[in-house]
Amino acid sequence: MPGEPRTLRLQHGNRIEALCVLGGHVRADVFGAAPAGAVAFGVKHTEGVSVDVLFHGHAEPEAVAGASMRWPLDEGTVLRFSMSRASSEVNDNKVTVSFYADGGKPINQTGVFLTGVGISLDVDADRDGVVEKNSPNKASWAWGPKGHGAILLVSCDKEFPFIPPSDCDSEQVFNREDLLDMAQMVLRTEGPQRLPRGYEIVLSVSVSDADKVGVFHVQNPFFGQRYVQVLGRRKLFHAVPYPGGDAELDFFVEGLRFPDETFSGLVSIHVSLLEPLAEGIPHSPIFTDTVVFRVAPWIMTPNTLAPVNFFVCSMKDNYLFTKEIGSLVAKASCKMKVCFGYVNRGDRWMQDEIRLGYTHAPHNSFPVVLDSPRERGMEQLPIKELLGPDFGYVHKEPLFEALASLDSFGNVEVSPPVSVAGREYPLGRILIGSSFPVSTGRRMTRLVRDFLYAQCVQAPVELYSDWLAMGKVNEFVTFVPASDKKRFRMLLASPAACYRLFREKQKEGQGEATMFKGYWGIDTKRITINKVLSNEVLAQQNQYVQRCIDWNRDILKKELGLLEEDIIDMPALFKLDKHGKAVPYFPNTVTMTVLARDLGIPKPFGPMADGECCLEQRIRMLLEPLGLHCCFLEDIASYHGSLGEVRCGTSVQRRPFAFKWWHFTP
Amino acid sequence: MPGEPRTLRLQHGNRIEALCVLGGHVRADVFGAAPAGAVAFGVKHTEGVSVDVLFHGHAEPEAVAGASMRWPLDEGTVLRFSMSRASSEVNDNKVTVSFYADGGKPINQTGVFLTGVGISLDVDADRDGVVEKNSPNKASWAWGPKGHGAILLVSCDKEFPFIPPSDCDSEQVFNREDLLDMAQMVLRTEGPQRLPRGYEIVLSVSVSDADKVGVFHVQNPFFGQRYVQVLGRRKLFHAVPYPGGDAELDFFVEGLRFPDETFSGLVSIHVSLLEPLAEGIPHSPIFTDTVVFRVAPWIMTPNTLAPVNFFVCSMKDNYLFTKEIGSLVAKASCKMKVCFGYVNRGDRWMQDEIRLGYTHAPHNSFPVVLDSPRERGMEQLPIKELLGPDFGYVHKEPLFEALASLDSFGNVEVSPPVSVAGREYPLGRILIGSSFPVSTGRRMTRLVRDFLYAQCVQAPVELYSDWLAMGKVNEFVTFVPASDKKRFRMLLASPAACYRLFREKQKEGQGEATMFKGYWGIDTKRITINKVLSNEVLAQQNQYVQRCIDWNRDILKKELGLLEEDIIDMPALFKLDKHGKAVPYFPNTVTMTVLARDLGIPKPFGPMADGECCLEQRIRMLLEPLGLHCCFLEDIASYHGSLGEVRCGTSVQRRPFAFKWWHFTP
Repeated sequence: MPGEPRTLRLQHGNRIEALCVLGGHVRADVFGAAPAGAVAFGVKHTEGVSVDVLFHGHAEPEAVAGASMRWPLDEGTVLRFSMSRASSEVNDNKVTVSFYADGGKPINQTGVFLTGVGISLDVDADRDGVVEKNSPNKASWAWGPKGHGAILLVSCDKEFPFIPPSDCDSEQVFNREDLLDMAQMVLRTEGPQRLPRGYEIVLSVSVSDADKVGVFHVQNPFFGQRYVQVLGRRKLFHAVPYPGGDAELDFFVEGLRFPDETFSGLVSIHVSLLEPLAEGIPHSPIFTDTVVFRVAPWIMTPNTLAPVNFFVCSMKDNYLFTKEIGSLVAKASCKMKVCFGYVNRGDRWMQDEIRLGYTHAPHNSFPVVLDSPRERGMEQLPIKELLGPDFGYVHKEPLFEALASLDSFGNVEVSPPVSVAGREYPLGRILIGSSFPVSTGRRMTRLVRDFLYAQCVQAPVELYSDWLAMGKVNEFVTFVPASDKKRFRMLLASPAACYRLFREKQKEGQGEATMFKGYWGIDTKRITINKVLSNEVLAQQNQYVQRCIDWNRDILKKELGLLEEDIIDMPALFKLDKHGKAVPYFPNTVTMTVLARDLGIPKPFGPMADGECCLEQRIRMLLEPLGLHCCFLEDIASYHGSLGEVRCGTSVQRRPFAFKWWHFTP
Repeated sequence: MPGEPRTLRLQHGNRIEALCVLGGHVRADVFGAAPAGAVAFGVKHTEGVSVDVLFHGHAEPEAVAGASMRWPLDEGTVLRFSMSRASSEVNDNKVTVSFYADGGKPINQTGVFLTGVGISLDVDADRDGVVEKNSPNKASWAWGPKGHGAILLVSCDKEFPFIPPSDCDSEQVFNREDLLDMAQMVLRTEGPQRLPRGYEIVLSVSVSDADKVGVFHVQNPFFGQRYVQVLGRRKLFHAVPYPGGDAELDFFVEGLRFPDETFSGLVSIHVSLLEPLAEGIPHSPIFTDTVVFRVAPWIMTPNTLAPVNFFVCSMKDNYLFTKEIGSLVAKASCKMKVCFGYVNRGDRWMQDEIRLGYTHAPHNSFPVVLDSPRERGMEQLPIKELLGPDFGYVHKEPLFEALASLDSFGNVEVSPPVSVAGREYPLGRILIGSSFPVSTGRRMTRLVRDFLYAQCVQAPVELYSDWLAMGKVNEFVTFVPASDKKRFRMLLASPAACYRLFREKQKEGQGEATMFKGYWGIDTKRITINKVLSNEVLAQQNQYVQRCIDWNRDILKKELGLLEEDIIDMPALFKLDKHGKAVPYFPNTVTMTVLARDLGIPKPFGPMADGECCLEQRIRMLLEPLGLHCCFLEDIASYHGSLGEVRCGTSVQRRPFAFKWWHFTP
């Protein structure tokens, strides 16, 4: 039992042998071991041992080494001894207790031969990339800059091109790269060349941790470095041959699962020293040392982080679009990755299928794609195209629930770093679209929501997106970088802003300016500012939409600590379908893609006044002062026509945060 | 959005109407509502309203009621208004905003008619049994004596004799007693006689809470008080007719589930005010008030609490036993409840089948039986005999896992209140028998372990009981009350103590004293102290057993903060079966039943010296000084013969703790 003195039973009239683990205490009941008629006792011991005599828990002055003192024999009198140096030979130390009758006549003796052994299971508890020796913090975990505790990565990447799907499904290590994903764990031992017969050192994990952690050890140092799994799903314990003398054995540890509702992220690994008694009698542990790891979370990357790779599907009908956006991507100096037909199998909604994030530990970090439970054709992309060396993959597959459109990742957003009433969120906060408190409306699959909550470092905020036909938060909110001290702005779709703009234009005599010029797929009758403003039904519907957005606006201001001036209202109009759910009236400009300072914005096809679209003009006016470049992309045929926009068809892998998640305190 | 000011959209040129919830703020963007050319604005309002003008979030001096002031019109200028008194009539208050052009020429006006309404959902957040009005703490929950938050009981008792199994499975309330188990929740409203057309007040629970809480409301006040469920498993929201004027509506709330691994115990109930817009457009919420409850945990009762009812099975072979123990029960002035054959169906292991505890809230408290997943015949007992008026029932049925003997409740114990290194456990700590870290041994069903952990108030300690054939903690540890300041002692089975005693006796010349006199079921050959002491195998096996117990002893000392003098070593001997698991060599005296100061101890049939059993003599010597009375019960035929003891065949319902669990901080 770590920390606690171990109880040893002396027997008068014979000597016993015992192993004494350095740093540990051994207690022996003197009174219980005394022969009948004994009234006092004395203790002798070798230098390597230090001995206390305890009366009812209170210590007496320690007996001088070699010398002999006497104490009255009393119920509850115990000896406590410990060793500070490891033995070079078995039984090279001893403690002898002599019992005395009334008048001081020696009656009998008892004693114990001791062998000092040092055992320590060590990890990088101070997170500096070095495995320190026997850290006092190795068995616990604490968040924050002053915190401590070792960290594991889920080896959900794939260093080796063949099956199984990803490294953490494999019980073999195929190359050194694989080890770099793993946390190092060192078993340090010191003592005689061999242990007394029958003693065993055993590494173990509990049944409940076995499916969450894997431990690897070199199998045969002589014939090439081959590493095999010694603890894991099917291996709860592993006997470690005692190396003898001073030794360090290296182990490599990987996480098998990200935290989720039923898994806090913490796992423990134990090393125990087992003592034999006799044939046919089970061994019993006399010492256990424990280390604790936390599995690193999956972290989302907001629009304000620099883009690295840009993903888009190549479809029959989006050649022009990809060409246009291609130049934008080049401008943002990030790589364009096109997902072709044989992989996307007719599914264009990149953003809904995958969400690119990363995972991070002091020893390593790599991007990880979260694969949506939604399966509409593209499910091969993440595994076939993304998963690979230092590119991880995680998939959430609900067992029972039916999937709703709210499960698409268009319905998951993450804010830039925010500070809310003094509370810092240096990794931002996740936004999840859900339904009103007062309705049985659609919600995101429990499994995905629970997964996002369980990552702990980007405290999710639930918004109300069920009022939309597609029900996705990215239809009304997004974030853009800004060059001023606030560093970002929140953009919200705003019918009110659109009506305000249109009324201004009307006053300026532009009431007959026409929308949807060169736009196909909508009925051809001429739609003017006047027509829009005079449409009572549309006005009421947009008043309702504005309320739904305002509800979210109030939540976002509170949960992200935003002021009015941190918010930009983007002119937008919606209409309600026959189920009373909102769909964009013209291409929805907030559903843009953000590549550093370059914005790929759905071309709104607004009213043309003086040969210019007054919506584009207004949006430029709002965003360019922040140092942003607006590029309006025609996405009618390719996306808008099927109720999506630019952003829904694309996905961006971004550079990770510089901030270390373990410095955050949930 | 509770707490947050709600955003209202003014439109110049027309007046809108709005409901204003007392205590809430409404924000209106003046700049956005201004007509083209406006440079300044003024505000007029009635007495019932208070108005602030905010420039970029900074407040200006409030406009004097009635009077008119002017402010420059500026981007980001908003009005914030609120009402402190409820309206007696619809639209009896108003705010008017006038816009002025350069030079002060009035251009246009906008305004809003306001109706003030008070809505508050109230609970007993300060736990004094009274539902206070709009407590600031009603929407959160905090542990400890200075804590706050309302409390629910799981109505797992059965006020009404017929199906369904227990009240919380029922959607009807059959009598007033049923309501007494429930927490009161009051919806308080004030305002005009009726609300403007189309407004709705709705009570709701989230999908994830719906299976954990039920809310009842009187159905027809006039024809007899009949209560029906308005929120619960199949009812996520409930429209409450607006009563008009000042009104209080009483609701009654019950928990449907005890906390478990997937349920923290906290549930939220919301009331929302829904605003209509126009035909065919969904309502939108303009105000939501939330209350939070914690479901009261299931609490175990240690041996140190006074016994109330004593349960034992009547079998063909235990007539004498029940008669003997009956007198003991009478002496402890608690009631004897015999479970007859037609219910126990041949299963005598009462202690393994059920564990009696209780649940407690400021408004009520009652005993609750936890039914083991183990089903060996007696499963009808808890439902048929115990469940009833103010007697609750909870059952944990694992879906997937196979059951081990460790699932029997003999393997669950609870300590008396302890203080560990300054940390108080006023309800004691639960002890669960499990297996060594280093083995794939048997453990308690995850479901039951998780349930015990989830109750939070009796922080479980895991012990090592897998070394025993039956694998139950009650085979080596129990607790007895003591009349001194420590209030209790922990009793541990101790082979070492037994060997010590036997050696003493041997020295006293009693080596030929014979065990098992009058004991049947064991081979008849004469067993003496000498024989036992000379049996090398038995000695080694008991040395091993002693180590297993010492391992637990060290854990218990640490986790319960005990000193040597708090522990009493009860002489015991074990032998190992062919699987290397321990079984008692003679009846195991720690597996006793504790009835106040009277102990029903398995008769050990120890060596008879001078016509007295030296084991009984020793045990008396150890326990009687504490003010306890030892009664040794012959349980060979009835229990010991089938590897159980007195305690395994009995179960005790005890008086609850005086301490309130919500004053504890986990």
